[in-house]
Amino acid sequence: MTRTVRIDRERLWGTLMELKEIGAYDDEATGLRGVRRLALTNADAEARRRCVEWMTEAGLEVRVDRIGNVYATRPGRDRSLPCVLMGSHIDTVATGGAFDGTLGVLGGIEVMRTLNDAGIETLRDIEVGFFTEEEGVRFGTDMLGSAVTAGRIPLDHAHKLTDSDGKTVEGELVRIGFDGDAHELRPIPYAYLECHIEQGPILADAGVDVGIVEGVQSISWQRITVAGEAAHAGTTPIGSRHDAGLVAAAVVVELRRMCDSGDFGQLRATVGNFDIGEGQTNVIPHQATITVDLRNPDDELMTAAEQHLGEYVETLARAQGVQTTWERMAKTAVVPFDAGIQNVLASTADNLHLPYVRAMSGAGHDAQEIAAPCPTAMIFVAGESGGISHTPREYSTPDACGNGTDVLANAVLRLADRT
Amino acid sequence: MTRTVRIDRERLWGTLMELKEIGAYDDEATGLRGVRRLALTNADAEARRRCVEWMTEAGLEVRVDRIGNVYATRPGRDRSLPCVLMGSHIDTVATGGAFDGTLGVLGGIEVMRTLNDAGIETLRDIEVGFFTEEEGVRFGTDMLGSAVTAGRIPLDHAHKLTDSDGKTVEGELVRIGFDGDAHELRPIPYAYLECHIEQGPILADAGVDVGIVEGVQSISWQRITVAGEAAHAGTTPIGSRHDAGLVAAAVVVELRRMCDSGDFGQLRATVGNFDIGEGQTNVIPHQATITVDLRNPDDELMTAAEQHLGEYVETLARAQGVQTTWERMAKTAVVPFDAGIQNVLASTADNLHLPYVRAMSGAGHDAQEIAAPCPTAMIFVAGESGGISHTPREYSTPDACGNGTDVLANAVLRLADRT
Repeated sequence: MTRTVRIDRERLWGTLMELKEIGAYDDEATGLRGVRRLALTNADAEARRRCVEWMTEAGLEVRVDRIGNVYATRPGRDRSLPCVLMGSHIDTVATGGAFDGTLGVLGGIEVMRTLNDAGIETLRDIEVGFFTEEEGVRFGTDMLGSAVTAGRIPLDHAHKLTDSDGKTVEGELVRIGFDGDAHELRPIPYAYLECHIEQGPILADAGVDVGIVEGVQSISWQRITVAGEAAHAGTTPIGSRHDAGLVAAAVVVELRRMCDSGDFGQLRATVGNFDIGEGQTNVIPHQATITVDLRNPDDELMTAAEQHLGEYVETLARAQGVQTTWERMAKTAVVPFDAGIQNVLASTADNLHLPYVRAMSGAGHDAQEIAAPCPTAMIFVAGESGGISHTPREYSTPDACGNGTDVLANAVLRLADRT
Repeated sequence: MTRTVRIDRERLWGTLMELKEIGAYDDEATGLRGVRRLALTNADAEARRRCVEWMTEAGLEVRVDRIGNVYATRPGRDRSLPCVLMGSHIDTVATGGAFDGTLGVLGGIEVMRTLNDAGIETLRDIEVGFFTEEEGVRFGTDMLGSAVTAGRIPLDHAHKLTDSDGKTVEGELVRIGFDGDAHELRPIPYAYLECHIEQGPILADAGVDVGIVEGVQSISWQRITVAGEAAHAGTTPIGSRHDAGLVAAAVVVELRRMCDSGDFGQLRATVGNFDIGEGQTNVIPHQATITVDLRNPDDELMTAAEQHLGEYVETLARAQGVQTTWERMAKTAVVPFDAGIQNVLASTADNLHLPYVRAMSGAGHDAQEIAAPCPTAMIFVAGESGGISHTPREYSTPDACGNGTDVLANAVLRLADRT
């Protein structure tokens, strides 16, 4: 029977607090210190180097692949067997906190240290990794590194993606020195486990620190561009207007109505970008671009929501005499996680006497990409204030982080000893 | 009895076409060549110098005041009498055309040339001028130069206004060499006449080239800033959101509903700026800033509209848990023009056998500022395509421009010979 280990909570917390200083900024909206560590920026590069140092200090073999994903290996007794992989990401959104992604990576490194300290040898290799541009904020495609790893996005396509300044993924990888030579399509692991903050209120509402994730809801990202006509605000009759800003605003309001209606199940809709270019107080906006982020735990209801949105915009555009163009930025179906791995997590939590709930993930995660080739599951860790995230207010207690990482450590240990 | 003159239509048209090359740009939305000549930019400076050249060539005495307004005088027989002033502006919006403002200035210069050619002497001085930053696009306050001239805005306040780069009006006046030494509170003229394109469909619908303007409708500019809270798009329940972008969008939609309802008379509402900062597809916007441009030919209905908007935003903000701040950018009551000057314009048009209609102005004009100290009226010139303006599609025919300027010339001539 496999031993039970306990990670060093203070040591884990220390690394979380140390990494959050890299890319730290003073957030005006909250008055707090936040983290702005967009993928492949200088801040991300510094955080990557710090993680690689910690990996090396833990005696791990580090490799970087061609999309900049970093993996560190703790060898097992039979190196011919597929490894057990832990991982997540260390890039953040522009208004981020200390836990989103980072917990799974630093937790994975902490697991390695714990196994070292306990002198434990495993049958299979254990690896911990972090994936490039999970947030999608800088280059517009989220889960980029894991999607390339899973073979869904070709490396060449990923390399050519650009940020708003026209800088490419490939150029930025070279610039920060993370253009590795390992092949991006890695050997398929025996199992992939990702520990991540919940970023929602389900665990806190249930009064537990730990969640076992059943899957990831469907995510749809679209960009809608409206082309209207500039005209004078004071003299142009209301009926003669082709107001691109109005059409975009009406879409925002309709999306909220769709969520509130219940017609599309547990639909969540967010317009995170609203750009009308250089506006003028007395000129009707001639163009507007918005992004629409839809989430739904039900694929059919997601399709219905997309269809309704398309019809709404078409009708509105005709009535207002504007042109619209749509760009599909991302679309993922509901991803169910591996039932066997979920059961390992459940019995591990039981052994540790940690209560848990099972839940779908509202957010997208690298795990949903890796789940395509490889048996995968996730551990959620509860957050304070309703699990608020993507803001400097994001916070999980040292105990919650420790409990989640204990489940990770012991589940990995079991899986790594399976023949 | 005063003689009747006719301006040189080709010469006027030639200057209009020449000036539109200064600040010209290729407009993507329309595929046309537009004019972008924001106040006190290099393009505006070049256009100012060209106008001063034309003034000097016409033998006029040019002076520049401390807010950068430029006046050129054609002396009369009795220089102790208050002058008759013509004028408008030569700055444009970012997506402007060749006629808005420019017609009244180049038309005024053409009137001077016409009087010279005819060898006509007048009793009173005649002046033509152009006012600084009429559009308000760069420094956020429209009719700036004329408002300072009328004493409504103190010079010192105007000098300190900044553009989006933090550059001041005073600094930009010095930079382009139009920081004059004439006092900005000029002697009150005997009459002020402004010839301007209509920027609306009334004249074209009536089948006339010329309009006599009865006054300017009320204008209200406000900036509303919404402070919400950033949070994760996928995991934050709809009911827990404080979405600043949604609140701003709902205001845009409500404003259109208010216009369509008829409850506020002939209200026109425009949201020309919609800024949520650097957006992120998967993050709920934590802040949004919009500008609201309201127009109404009825002061009481304008007040009712402002009041309704305030109540709507307050209720919405409370429901969504966001904070709003309001900034009053500009507010002008309905400005009626001088009945006596309107009658001079009407009999002048009759004498020239030019049909006309009387109309309120939907747009703000320098004339509404100068009307406070000085008897004032305006001549409108019809535009094509419903009088569309603030776009490169703005166009008035050479005949319409010529007819309007003929009315200007002969009305000025009558007024300048009055004792």
